[in-house]
Amino acid sequence: MSSPIFQNILIYGLGLMGASLALTIKKQFPNSKIHAIVRSQESKLKIESMQIVHSVFIESEFLAQENPEKFWGEYDLIVFGTPVHLIKKQLTHIPKKLSAVITDMGSTKKTIIDAVASYYDGQSDHNYISSHPMCGSELAGAENAIDGLYQDKLCILTPLENSNREGLNRLRSFWEAMGMRTHVLDEVSHDRILAYLSHSPHILSSLMVTWADTHVGDENKKSPQPIMGGGFRDMARIAGSNPEMWQAILSENRLSILESLKEFGSLLEKTIHSLESGSPEEWEKLFLDAAQHKKHLIES
Amino acid sequence: MSSPIFQNILIYGLGLMGASLALTIKKQFPNSKIHAIVRSQESKLKIESMQIVHSVFIESEFLAQENPEKFWGEYDLIVFGTPVHLIKKQLTHIPKKLSAVITDMGSTKKTIIDAVASYYDGQSDHNYISSHPMCGSELAGAENAIDGLYQDKLCILTPLENSNREGLNRLRSFWEAMGMRTHVLDEVSHDRILAYLSHSPHILSSLMVTWADTHVGDENKKSPQPIMGGGFRDMARIAGSNPEMWQAILSENRLSILESLKEFGSLLEKTIHSLESGSPEEWEKLFLDAAQHKKHLIES
Repeated sequence: MSSPIFQNILIYGLGLMGASLALTIKKQFPNSKIHAIVRSQESKLKIESMQIVHSVFIESEFLAQENPEKFWGEYDLIVFGTPVHLIKKQLTHIPKKLSAVITDMGSTKKTIIDAVASYYDGQSDHNYISSHPMCGSELAGAENAIDGLYQDKLCILTPLENSNREGLNRLRSFWEAMGMRTHVLDEVSHDRILAYLSHSPHILSSLMVTWADTHVGDENKKSPQPIMGGGFRDMARIAGSNPEMWQAILSENRLSILESLKEFGSLLEKTIHSLESGSPEEWEKLFLDAAQHKKHLIES
Repeated sequence: MSSPIFQNILIYGLGLMGASLALTIKKQFPNSKIHAIVRSQESKLKIESMQIVHSVFIESEFLAQENPEKFWGEYDLIVFGTPVHLIKKQLTHIPKKLSAVITDMGSTKKTIIDAVASYYDGQSDHNYISSHPMCGSELAGAENAIDGLYQDKLCILTPLENSNREGLNRLRSFWEAMGMRTHVLDEVSHDRILAYLSHSPHILSSLMVTWADTHVGDENKKSPQPIMGGGFRDMARIAGSNPEMWQAILSENRLSILESLKEFGSLLEKTIHSLESGSPEEWEKLFLDAAQHKKHLIES
């Protein structure tokens, strides 16, 4: 049992990510106290019955407390497990001078970092460092919490210029203790890379299913089993999952996604042109190139 | 042990599909005799050492035999396991009047059916019925043959107008005995549906990997592990696989693939436009629509 990096942890928002984090902390640092903020009395009762945290507060009551410095000051780590558009408001409730390390688990970074920078405007040093633990599930909610959700996954850390460096180091050690590998990345690169490797692929998968069903769905239905191989199925797995969450990601990272989709459109246009007037050697090259790029991107 | 539908089966081309078929026939109909045509002495020795067929012929020697009717006449089922562009030539070696049922395992249909129609031009009745057993592997060659390759998969049957109906029924029973479900489909519908549910998705997967690696591959490499979730990985699985085979499929089904890729391009354009000037409700609808289409296409 290692000595806990943080003793009193507040998880603000206990959905699938937050509840899975509570499970992992409990396992790695059984002496740490974990507290949670939820939105409703119903959620509070649900979380209490799960016995995964030491205390549960309802958001409106927690925020209405007098002397906020005292209450917030009881924690040495505060983690937002809420959606990005809420984090941007919620973080402004936290007193500006606080020794706790503050982070979030948002899947886009630019708009959070902008909100943090604006909140701490002019302050020479603060403890906010944004995190993006790259894990998740097709399910949602604390009731679907997964014990090993963070294990062997990547956590991207995005500090601001004024983020305290010791805070960054402690947060990095914390995520590593949760079983993750860490990587520091600025918010612009983060959002651009994620547009290509996660956000736009979710859109492309969704478009692919809509396109195929629109054009050949009814004919496909006449077959005793779907006329498709494992390739299409794999590509369709993430299509249409969690529309509310993906709308939010799209709203937060609209410009990077747009740029990347336009690049995809150009490549598709070139391919269509090659199919119209090119040679079989050119068509074979399309797959040979992809094999090379796949090796560079994923395999080696 | 059921009574064999065919007693003497000739498999013309013994790659992964042909060799896997030999294994399945051997299991289901141990009394049937299986013969194979291969291209080289080297292949002949390899197949003989595997002991999966009763006799192996080298193509050039087989075709050079005098009195072709006698030799071809020894079989009651002839299955082409060669690529589509070869099948179109190879089938012309078969005597036009033959009681054997003749089929292939090509993954595109229009060009084969055109070649068959032209070969049997004016003949009122023949035994050629095209097949597309929808199974395969990322590996190739007889040495990678898989015992259960055909089990529970779909086999599409494409007869011609003059194909003998009894032949069709026997062939259908044969594939069902191999563990497959069967579906009769004309060649134009086949190629159009497969463009949407298999061929173009292979192209889109390949383009996606090339696109992502080109734009963010080097940045991705700096991370201790790839900055991607399971979604991208799933979509990339089929990218760049078997370039030679996919070039051939693309060559054979170019027009249907082109049409489908243009439709995908239009949908992508609409999406880009919506991201430029639409509302979050519209963006959420993109995922909600996909969820509906997915249900219709795959799940129900």
